[in-house]
Amino acid sequence: MDYIPYNSRNTLHKSKFGALREGEYVVFKVVLPRSLCCSGVDLVIWSDSGDCESIPMSWLSMQGNDEEWWAMGYTAKKADIYFYHFEYHTPWGRMTIRHNGNCCGSLSMGREDWQLSVYSKDFTTPQWLKGGLFYQIFPDRFYSSGEEKKNVPADRVLRKDIFGEPEWRPNSQGKVMNNDYFCGDLKGIEEKLDYIESLGVTCIYLNPIFEAQSNHRYDTADYSKIDPLLGTEKDLKSLCRKAAEKGISVILDGVFSHTGDDSVYFNKYGRYQSLGAFQSQESPYYKWYKFTDYPNEYRSWWGISILPEVVEESEEFLSFITGKDGIARRWLRCGVRGWRLDVADELPDVFLDEFRKAVKQENPEALVLGEVWEDASNKFSYGQRRHYFRGDELDSVMNYPFADAVIGFLRSGVAEGFTDKIMTILENYPKCVIDVLMNHIGTHDTMRAITALAGESCEYRDRSWQSSHSLSEQQYDRGIRLMKMASVIQYTLPGVPSLYYGDEAGMQGYKDPFNRFCYPWGRENKELLEHYRKLGHIRKNTACLKEGEYCTVSEMLGCLAYVRYSGKSKIMVIANRNDHEIDYYLPLDWHNCISLLGGKVQGDKVKIDALEAVILTKEENET
Amino acid sequence: MDYIPYNSRNTLHKSKFGALREGEYVVFKVVLPRSLCCSGVDLVIWSDSGDCESIPMSWLSMQGNDEEWWAMGYTAKKADIYFYHFEYHTPWGRMTIRHNGNCCGSLSMGREDWQLSVYSKDFTTPQWLKGGLFYQIFPDRFYSSGEEKKNVPADRVLRKDIFGEPEWRPNSQGKVMNNDYFCGDLKGIEEKLDYIESLGVTCIYLNPIFEAQSNHRYDTADYSKIDPLLGTEKDLKSLCRKAAEKGISVILDGVFSHTGDDSVYFNKYGRYQSLGAFQSQESPYYKWYKFTDYPNEYRSWWGISILPEVVEESEEFLSFITGKDGIARRWLRCGVRGWRLDVADELPDVFLDEFRKAVKQENPEALVLGEVWEDASNKFSYGQRRHYFRGDELDSVMNYPFADAVIGFLRSGVAEGFTDKIMTILENYPKCVIDVLMNHIGTHDTMRAITALAGESCEYRDRSWQSSHSLSEQQYDRGIRLMKMASVIQYTLPGVPSLYYGDEAGMQGYKDPFNRFCYPWGRENKELLEHYRKLGHIRKNTACLKEGEYCTVSEMLGCLAYVRYSGKSKIMVIANRNDHEIDYYLPLDWHNCISLLGGKVQGDKVKIDALEAVILTKEENET
Repeated sequence: MDYIPYNSRNTLHKSKFGALREGEYVVFKVVLPRSLCCSGVDLVIWSDSGDCESIPMSWLSMQGNDEEWWAMGYTAKKADIYFYHFEYHTPWGRMTIRHNGNCCGSLSMGREDWQLSVYSKDFTTPQWLKGGLFYQIFPDRFYSSGEEKKNVPADRVLRKDIFGEPEWRPNSQGKVMNNDYFCGDLKGIEEKLDYIESLGVTCIYLNPIFEAQSNHRYDTADYSKIDPLLGTEKDLKSLCRKAAEKGISVILDGVFSHTGDDSVYFNKYGRYQSLGAFQSQESPYYKWYKFTDYPNEYRSWWGISILPEVVEESEEFLSFITGKDGIARRWLRCGVRGWRLDVADELPDVFLDEFRKAVKQENPEALVLGEVWEDASNKFSYGQRRHYFRGDELDSVMNYPFADAVIGFLRSGVAEGFTDKIMTILENYPKCVIDVLMNHIGTHDTMRAITALAGESCEYRDRSWQSSHSLSEQQYDRGIRLMKMASVIQYTLPGVPSLYYGDEAGMQGYKDPFNRFCYPWGRENKELLEHYRKLGHIRKNTACLKEGEYCTVSEMLGCLAYVRYSGKSKIMVIANRNDHEIDYYLPLDWHNCISLLGGKVQGDKVKIDALEAVILTKEENET
Repeated sequence: MDYIPYNSRNTLHKSKFGALREGEYVVFKVVLPRSLCCSGVDLVIWSDSGDCESIPMSWLSMQGNDEEWWAMGYTAKKADIYFYHFEYHTPWGRMTIRHNGNCCGSLSMGREDWQLSVYSKDFTTPQWLKGGLFYQIFPDRFYSSGEEKKNVPADRVLRKDIFGEPEWRPNSQGKVMNNDYFCGDLKGIEEKLDYIESLGVTCIYLNPIFEAQSNHRYDTADYSKIDPLLGTEKDLKSLCRKAAEKGISVILDGVFSHTGDDSVYFNKYGRYQSLGAFQSQESPYYKWYKFTDYPNEYRSWWGISILPEVVEESEEFLSFITGKDGIARRWLRCGVRGWRLDVADELPDVFLDEFRKAVKQENPEALVLGEVWEDASNKFSYGQRRHYFRGDELDSVMNYPFADAVIGFLRSGVAEGFTDKIMTILENYPKCVIDVLMNHIGTHDTMRAITALAGESCEYRDRSWQSSHSLSEQQYDRGIRLMKMASVIQYTLPGVPSLYYGDEAGMQGYKDPFNRFCYPWGRENKELLEHYRKLGHIRKNTACLKEGEYCTVSEMLGCLAYVRYSGKSKIMVIANRNDHEIDYYLPLDWHNCISLLGGKVQGDKVKIDALEAVILTKEENET
């Protein structure tokens, strides 16, 4: 009822939805009440790089009612992030059309400009990943081949009790050591490829596997060596080859904003033969780090002294990682198909640019995926606007905004607002990025999804929430139902779902390390596992899930419904978060559709159980 | 998702919603996919009177996407009912755009033309009625002044047991006599004017009050005489005068398609002094009737021989009713402010034309309201298209389609489809008709609303469902809650609500005569009565309910929400038909609104009880 002069998500107002490719043409249209006696409308469009244009729009005369439309064609000249609003001239003065945190403009009360992302002409992302499924493995905790571990440093605790709780208590010095190992290894993963394949996985994302002094291995000790507890380079090659035979790719975790202090490069404790930066200013690695008072004071990641920060833009580090035989390319040559970049926000543009170049030169189809927790299209970090998706940095990111939307809806029961969260990302990201977005609902950095959905009230992204508390039986049963719903949504949103190992088996747990228990082989929740297998099957056989469009049908009264479509393929997802059964009346063209999962279709409606999500399709022969 | 080239309810496609006044200008716009390579589009518009035009549309070129718009301006030349579709020319042939029973066109699969109602330039309806409230009284059953009834014919049974059941059993000849009288009278109504006023009533609609031989009095015996059991002409004048002092008008029921056989005019049994048509072909009334075999065989209403049909277009009858001192004008002179025309479908155009003229000449502000059970804008009856709303016949009708929509939603719990029923009427009727539509949820011809809402499954419009069965206590309690919901919707839809006497007191009952019990003075359902008084108050004090626009906000999952607005005045109605409480999240511009009735507003949402309807407003000082 509020007058809406412009809605960036309505193709009547902006002829092409979302981000534009360089050189692409778009028509902007604004509608105004004639009573404003408007004498002119301008599009005002600007970017951080200082470009600012004010372009007059044309009056369109053929209206029979009380409104008039103003329009103009615009060609996106240069890849950049633009912001725009409209100005209109009335006898009473100049007014602006802006919005208020959503897509709909206001004649006078708007405070925010719209965003227009423009990406490079030749920006592409890996085609092989589209329509796929990630499986994230925390390597120490997935599966042990049982091979004996030799020459294990004395400061590591090897454990065999795979159902046991990871150590989380600080030691007598108050430090959490992260030095208990459950002996998961690369061979173990290879042995479980049949299992992984049965889930429909097409890409394994491994948390760090390089030598390090902790079980999470984010404190890299040697970028060029697989951690001996995990196996050897040969094991990695074998894993990649065997996985490839099943159509499964492998990507690695690249931790390039810092190293461990106990590393070949810093070598604070002299564990390594090398001349470390801590040991001598003559060290070949000295320029990697930023000492404020040599050698004891240096910049470290979040002030954690065991993680000295790297000067990523230094010639020395840059060439080590992105050089012709640098780390980035070296591991691709072993059969790895891409990298996940840890804390991408802390990697400067020059590093990301060079990293992408190196990767794509080695394999144009390799993936570069960044860890960014927010909308990555317009992020400001360290005083700078980032350009992850201009076409020269990232292909994709870990999609926390989608995870927030899914968990937020299912935890609260409030469907309203879900669409806006999804559409904001779809509107701001290039299409080729959207199709390879890593859509998780939990990672090694968050609590387990089932706990976030059914556990005590807490923010699942809050890294500080640490508890060994388990779900009650009742919470767990409810959690299983919510997990089924969450996975249905996750598997059917634009992008590529990412399954965190064991989520499919019903694993629960609060934050690190409770989200890093061993996969419970033999004690899986069979019902949930079957559900995930079924979802994997549906994903593989539903064309529109690859690059199809997204459109919300409704989001209210505890129920969310949306469609995906692409050519003849289309599905509708309806998620009933209520504690009662509902009759969902279908849009005309969905009458008598077919259920791929759940629900009972009855002509013009579908009956959906309490806490159930259904997938419907129009194509009888689709799966 | 189906491609929608035209939607008659979207002002982007038809610049003015709904019916047009003669001479009014409207722009039609059609949108087509460019891939159709369309070389031309025509509007094809026709009427039953034989007019048919095919008018080429113009191509609008300024689109940047895959669509093109075609447009044309059209002036409604003559008051008539038009139907239209579009034809478009492609290299593969000529195709039509029609719809399928709703407003949205289809590129090739549509079967129905759209309707365009055009009404006379000078069509107006009574302004005094707008924003008002009808109260329908079945005169024998409302309230008895207690005045002694004299000279009562022997065939009438007078009863004093106002809580007793009306006689419904056939007599020994198998005839239902309708001859039991509870002695309600005009004086009784006058005595209860304070009560009626307390409900917010602005217009009393009286079922027939002229002399007749039955308690319902649809078998008129003498058009010029008040039935003695009801009182005298003086009583009627007094009632009208007293009512007017309270701002309440009175309208009468005009039964002009037939008379009683036991009447001054037919006089089959010689009860009257007159020379009846049955008695002699010399009778002044002979030409009123159509005898097929004089005198025993004659056309009668629905074959009921005690109700001989009248030849309404006969000079004799026409002048008797619509002449200068005819029946129509005679009673208006007593202070009556309009007529409800029984079975308007069976009254020929010439009669309606003359009747309207007579009424409006006597009082330009008097009301002519017809009994039409269907969409009165395009009704075919007896092989003829009716033109009730061209401007020369009716001002209004008894709005059964709205009653169907309200009762259908509340009985079934299915909100979906409600809007279409409402919009069809709003789209087809002239605005001045909409504002005076008689919106009832039950009448003397249907079962009581509470029974329709909460009783055994049955169709409330089915005249044949006769039963003395009462609601169980549980059904009744649920019925009261549903009545509250029904009345909220009824009181807030476009038009004028009509309250059937006693509905507000919780009266129940299936069809005739169970819907005609006496008003239960002293045994009213106090809770429901208070609710109706509150609604009456809200209605009087909410400007947008008079002539405001209607717009659906949502209709799904057992919950219906819509707004009415007019200038600064706006309300939102949300009806939760579910058996559980809901949180209804409000549109942005309704956050922190105020409740006029029910619900708990909490910022961006309102909590609504199971089976509760709420009325919200934006204007703090509105009531």
